[in-house]
Amino acid sequence: MSGPQAPEPTLEGQADASAGSPDEDAAEGIQHSHRMLSFSDALLSIIATVMILPVTHTEISPEQEFDKSVQRLLATRIAVYLMTFLIVTVAWAAHTRLFQVVGKIDDTLALLNLACMMTITFLPFTVSHRGFRPHFHPGPSRPPLTPEHALLKLSDSWAVGLDHVVAEFSLMVTFPEVPLGIFLFCMCVIAIGAVQALIVLYAFHFPHLLSPQIERSAHRGLYRQRVLGIIVRGPALCLAAAGFSLFFYPASYLLMAMVIVLPHVSKAAGWCRAQLVGLREPPAHSVEVFTFDLHEPLSKERVEAFSDGVYAIVATLLILDICEDNVPDAKDVKEKFQGSLVAALGESGPHFLAYFGSFATVGLLWFAHHSLFLHIRRATQPMGLLNTLSLAFVGGLPLAYQQTSAFTKQPRDELESVRISCAIIFLASIFQFAIWTTALLQEGETLQPSARFGGREHAFMFAKLALYPCASLLAFACTCVLSSFSTAIFHAMQIAVPFAFLLLRLLVRLALAGLRALRGLVGPVLARPAPGAADEAQSPLLPAPC
Amino acid sequence: MSGPQAPEPTLEGQADASAGSPDEDAAEGIQHSHRMLSFSDALLSIIATVMILPVTHTEISPEQEFDKSVQRLLATRIAVYLMTFLIVTVAWAAHTRLFQVVGKIDDTLALLNLACMMTITFLPFTVSHRGFRPHFHPGPSRPPLTPEHALLKLSDSWAVGLDHVVAEFSLMVTFPEVPLGIFLFCMCVIAIGAVQALIVLYAFHFPHLLSPQIERSAHRGLYRQRVLGIIVRGPALCLAAAGFSLFFYPASYLLMAMVIVLPHVSKAAGWCRAQLVGLREPPAHSVEVFTFDLHEPLSKERVEAFSDGVYAIVATLLILDICEDNVPDAKDVKEKFQGSLVAALGESGPHFLAYFGSFATVGLLWFAHHSLFLHIRRATQPMGLLNTLSLAFVGGLPLAYQQTSAFTKQPRDELESVRISCAIIFLASIFQFAIWTTALLQEGETLQPSARFGGREHAFMFAKLALYPCASLLAFACTCVLSSFSTAIFHAMQIAVPFAFLLLRLLVRLALAGLRALRGLVGPVLARPAPGAADEAQSPLLPAPC
Repeated sequence: MSGPQAPEPTLEGQADASAGSPDEDAAEGIQHSHRMLSFSDALLSIIATVMILPVTHTEISPEQEFDKSVQRLLATRIAVYLMTFLIVTVAWAAHTRLFQVVGKIDDTLALLNLACMMTITFLPFTVSHRGFRPHFHPGPSRPPLTPEHALLKLSDSWAVGLDHVVAEFSLMVTFPEVPLGIFLFCMCVIAIGAVQALIVLYAFHFPHLLSPQIERSAHRGLYRQRVLGIIVRGPALCLAAAGFSLFFYPASYLLMAMVIVLPHVSKAAGWCRAQLVGLREPPAHSVEVFTFDLHEPLSKERVEAFSDGVYAIVATLLILDICEDNVPDAKDVKEKFQGSLVAALGESGPHFLAYFGSFATVGLLWFAHHSLFLHIRRATQPMGLLNTLSLAFVGGLPLAYQQTSAFTKQPRDELESVRISCAIIFLASIFQFAIWTTALLQEGETLQPSARFGGREHAFMFAKLALYPCASLLAFACTCVLSSFSTAIFHAMQIAVPFAFLLLRLLVRLALAGLRALRGLVGPVLARPAPGAADEAQSPLLPAPC
Repeated sequence: MSGPQAPEPTLEGQADASAGSPDEDAAEGIQHSHRMLSFSDALLSIIATVMILPVTHTEISPEQEFDKSVQRLLATRIAVYLMTFLIVTVAWAAHTRLFQVVGKIDDTLALLNLACMMTITFLPFTVSHRGFRPHFHPGPSRPPLTPEHALLKLSDSWAVGLDHVVAEFSLMVTFPEVPLGIFLFCMCVIAIGAVQALIVLYAFHFPHLLSPQIERSAHRGLYRQRVLGIIVRGPALCLAAAGFSLFFYPASYLLMAMVIVLPHVSKAAGWCRAQLVGLREPPAHSVEVFTFDLHEPLSKERVEAFSDGVYAIVATLLILDICEDNVPDAKDVKEKFQGSLVAALGESGPHFLAYFGSFATVGLLWFAHHSLFLHIRRATQPMGLLNTLSLAFVGGLPLAYQQTSAFTKQPRDELESVRISCAIIFLASIFQFAIWTTALLQEGETLQPSARFGGREHAFMFAKLALYPCASLLAFACTCVLSSFSTAIFHAMQIAVPFAFLLLRLLVRLALAGLRALRGLVGPVLARPAPGAADEAQSPLLPAPC
């Protein structure tokens, strides 16, 4: 957008460097932060998603009864996965906001960012640590824990996930090693806060590293205080939580929950304060603060990069499961097939089908996400939240895959596992659809003109995003009607969906051609759909005269 | 670079769309391929790296003797990992070349690309499939396989990795299920070729999707033939290999090896042919072919994105190992610590240290890579190859981590595992250093002016890249001199390296300040280092007048 020319020589030593060409910048060690941010996004998205692996690696042999202890173990691990995902996403959002303030980096900032990444990637460990994770022993050596037994009555079906979270938290309180889990989590949050505060202090000490808007602002000191205030708030709460953990647990859990919910609370508080400040101070300044803080809550590029990372790791975990698990005994295989290629391929067939079907689902959900964000101009806070929820269920897809490929023998379990898969796919896709509907509510601000009501791509986007919710609901309905439903059919259905996408494209093309022919007959009246809306839509596309 | 204006209306229907604004492009379903390529890069880098997981998940309990069967199993898995990495990298390079021809995408191309990704991610499965992987049974049920026993004599130390690859290949020949492995691999390569051919045909059918250079070229038909020829060559070889596999194995292995080495061979052949063609044909056209084929063998952005993916997944696998493995029995912990926070933290200490040390190493190797590519303007083919080798060893870092955190009790094993870690780190960093030296050989073409001989950042880059090879050699030397070497000290050393980086920065700053003061005394003679080189360096920076 803006050239690298510094408008005023704020620093004596570095002024000539920041005014130079990009190569001159590189020579002075000042770099655009693009690649570092992509790397951070990849790291955080993978760390958020990879905690599904302990869930899918829960050993359930086909012979073993799918009993309550296994259910409990799975539910606990799912709860840990969701908690991790939520926490990492909050940390990612904070990181995004931080690097909206810091525009460029040098070596020191790159190293500080790596330190920040290190502490953030350590968070899942504190969550999955024994302090946070009560252990259920599915084997013969189950210890007689009374609260666990009392709570086991609750766990009758797969739907008890939420109960388990509650159970987990209550169990945590009864264990003496709980303080360690809380303590580690709090220490980690405090370390993250300290590193982020260091980054902010360093960047404000060398203002040519700041984003151009803040660098040029006269209220830089005020900005620094505000940003530091936002960053230090979470760690301060955690310090209090660590203190409470020594004598009163519930308070520390409350405080920790606040740390996670805090960004949303502080956003609302900040908005209120900005309104108040706007009344007292000159309007130019208040608009500036307002812009930085609320109007660009999430950079669209970083939302895309984070989402890409999640989809990529999920697609990869699928093949890992095949490669690691389905390796039968070499001797056994030798006896079974007697070297027959066709028999061996036939035996591997269901695995291929399961893999291709699951990959098709992940790939097409990515495709829908990609199409959606192509038409989105700006991601608001609620859209970011819905995207996170969608991604959390996308991260659950390896579990769906594991379910549909593990139980291939028992017809009842097969039905159930297809249902679970359908539910996960439905939730992942319905939240994508919700992003779209939320964007439509503020379509002037968030969407490209062609995707708005009456736009050329509107109907097509609608159809594209509605495809997966409908298909998964249909499959779910099938499982309820039919007494036996083969996973093979389910995977074949998954593979068939891409062709439905292509068919959609073809249908829309035909419809457009028909409309065009109709338009030619009717005249130029229909050429502009809803002229008032279109005018309103075009105006924000013009560059702001700054 | 160039605006979206189409110079000549080549197509009747789509010409108005391709001449529109970016939003108009989006409305017609034509999109810039940036995000899709990042997603593909992330996917391929993860799939290449994630095959290290079966290596690190090889169960070696601390009590178990590190015997020969375990060694064999590990060596085989490492061979599979390296093979997978190599194959996926070749596929990635082909994908890069393909999307240098195709500049923009629409929905159909996005779906075709997903199909291509699906087939490529399936490749590791064909490699790790039982047809390719003879099984060693470390347990009591080891079957009496004579070739295995004969070859077991070879496996006396960790250095027998290469022997194992040979052994593996020879074992494959003796197993009747081998054809399945070869057959699957060949089918997969053929499927990839088919999908890529479809992409090329589709893109040439709608020329507005091609890269601007080829879209404008008068020799589009010739290009199509050339590109198709390059793409179809590999699958054709694989078809022959599949045929040979039925009656003569060695020939099919030779052909499969050729598929992997083919890009390099065909590059050389293409260069020779381009020289010959250049003698016969008008120079303008030959230059065009030459540019497309040789001068931009690898897009720098995509090399960076692929590398970022590898580093990110490696950093993430570290924490996964902690989270999944180091969860002791809850009851046991309860008895051990009696609720003592300090004792519990002390017991977890080595794990923290190992994690932070390993993360620091991965992070700083990424940092060195980042700094290096900041000064690189163009990545040539040899640099790409060296980068791949470096990344292959970076992918081995989780193994180093596993080694140094698994054996914390036996002093002899500790020494050995530190040595393995040092070797892996040394190899990963020395190949990075080799990229730098290779770039220096053609510094006018490949490096930014500031990083060339006599440039401001040259000495600093040298120091930065030499730090890890030196440090790992030093640590290796320590293990040879000292009789006992603690992994704790090793990890502490790893954590100390970032400060060495900062110290380096400080030292270079001081040296620069000293030089500047000296320059002020001597006068403007030293201000331009090597004026001839600088002039030559500046000229390619100017935009080409097209």
